[in-house]
Amino acid sequence: MPEIAQWLVETRVTIDNWIRDDLPWRQDLAGTVEEAMRYSLLAGGKRLRPQLVLAAAALTGEPTDRFRLAALAVEYLHTYSLIHDDLPAMDNDDLRRGLPTSHKVYGEAMAILAGDALLTEAWGKMAALAGEGFDPAHVVRALAVLSRAAGRGGLIRGQVLDLAAEHQTVGLEQLEEIHRLKTGALFEACCILPAVLQGDPEAERRLARFARHFGLAFQIVDDILNVIGDRTVLGKATGTDVALGKATYPRLLGIEEARRLARHHATEADKALGGGAAADVLRGLMRFAVEREW
Amino acid sequence: MPEIAQWLVETRVTIDNWIRDDLPWRQDLAGTVEEAMRYSLLAGGKRLRPQLVLAAAALTGEPTDRFRLAALAVEYLHTYSLIHDDLPAMDNDDLRRGLPTSHKVYGEAMAILAGDALLTEAWGKMAALAGEGFDPAHVVRALAVLSRAAGRGGLIRGQVLDLAAEHQTVGLEQLEEIHRLKTGALFEACCILPAVLQGDPEAERRLARFARHFGLAFQIVDDILNVIGDRTVLGKATGTDVALGKATYPRLLGIEEARRLARHHATEADKALGGGAAADVLRGLMRFAVEREW
Repeated sequence: MPEIAQWLVETRVTIDNWIRDDLPWRQDLAGTVEEAMRYSLLAGGKRLRPQLVLAAAALTGEPTDRFRLAALAVEYLHTYSLIHDDLPAMDNDDLRRGLPTSHKVYGEAMAILAGDALLTEAWGKMAALAGEGFDPAHVVRALAVLSRAAGRGGLIRGQVLDLAAEHQTVGLEQLEEIHRLKTGALFEACCILPAVLQGDPEAERRLARFARHFGLAFQIVDDILNVIGDRTVLGKATGTDVALGKATYPRLLGIEEARRLARHHATEADKALGGGAAADVLRGLMRFAVEREW
Repeated sequence: MPEIAQWLVETRVTIDNWIRDDLPWRQDLAGTVEEAMRYSLLAGGKRLRPQLVLAAAALTGEPTDRFRLAALAVEYLHTYSLIHDDLPAMDNDDLRRGLPTSHKVYGEAMAILAGDALLTEAWGKMAALAGEGFDPAHVVRALAVLSRAAGRGGLIRGQVLDLAAEHQTVGLEQLEEIHRLKTGALFEACCILPAVLQGDPEAERRLARFARHFGLAFQIVDDILNVIGDRTVLGKATGTDVALGKATYPRLLGIEEARRLARHHATEADKALGGGAAADVLRGLMRFAVEREW
């Protein structure tokens, strides 16, 4: 197994344990919002976003465990966005990573509340970073960065544009805009958070540039897998983008050209990191993520 | 007009203007999440929660304008909770303050996203308080206080218990718990935020005690108005609690005993504030709120 695959397995277990410790199972959890939060958090996520936080943390020279709460915050934020995206009024997905979605298990009301609770808790975790020895001024700035990435100028704007784009003719520029917001904004926040918390503007600039190209490469690969991927491997329905008439890179460019574009962005992401062994994990993670089954 | 009524009208206009400045109307707003956010924010709210922030700010001796972002944050948070509560999967309300609810105007998907965006923006506003000269350590603590009040141990827990209590036999203790969480938690956060931001633990304790009693008094009056109030005056449907089989104070205690209990909590709230002219606005606001049309 390549070294990065080993790192990904190990950090995934670490992050899973952090979540389990944060929301421990109890008999009396039945029927509570905590049960629904825990279900979606532990429903087989790849943990890519918290892994980005931990991989980027290596560039600060600090022990990665110090960034535990930031890693949890981005995973909670990501999980909230999945639960709400899957709702009947939104993408109406019954399955996510091979398991029934939150509203299929707990009903719509509880799914909405579980998402709301995860989003609210993400901010609490960020605020709690001040108790881990980070400068409160840097913690406040990290909170502002994450709020902007997640809000009406980032993630949520991407979701709105995505909904509006269904069954519409969408150009490449518009498609890149949607992905820059839906995936890229949070990717970028994950990558720069350690540098912001540590107060290192130079690392922040490099990481922001890396994240923008990585985010696009990642999304293009996701689109390709949605067309050609195997449902059993992906653990989610494939071909759904075509069925919904959604704009995707393969639909706009053809598979081959989409692959070429993904490779281009991966190369640019690599360049942005520059030399130095501190960036090795981040570089490996990126290569691994864009060289999935295709 | 009594002095406090004048203050309420003036601060309401001030808060409305702050919201308008924050989300200005533009031609190209149509179809955006900002339009839906703006609609619900400006749909005739009483602004009680930001008014609590501004009234409590008087106890710090600072100009109340300094707390503008905290006032906006709690109003954005409150508005998100109303939008999501009104959704078909939750309380399924078509009207709020005499106007169609968000999902009736913009559809369910946009209503969910507008709520999510308001919740996210609330945290951004809190983080931005560090740019207004508040100590970042106090800002972080204020964020933690608000996240706890809004999250799975506060507002959201109240909502979950409330949903579970529909068509159930509910005792007085359980009812107080629901209201303590659904209304009281955010009330308390509003009242203590200025003291937390200013770093004044003594004021914080007094305000917390005030807020707990005020929250209960306010909720009891709300329940009474839901039974005996006039739909035209309230701008929302009355008798809905009975129709939903919801536990309410009048249902549990009868109208007269409920009134007595509201008066008791109002008196306790008053006592908690202690003497001093700095608390006059807060005291007046409380009296005014619990002496509504009954």
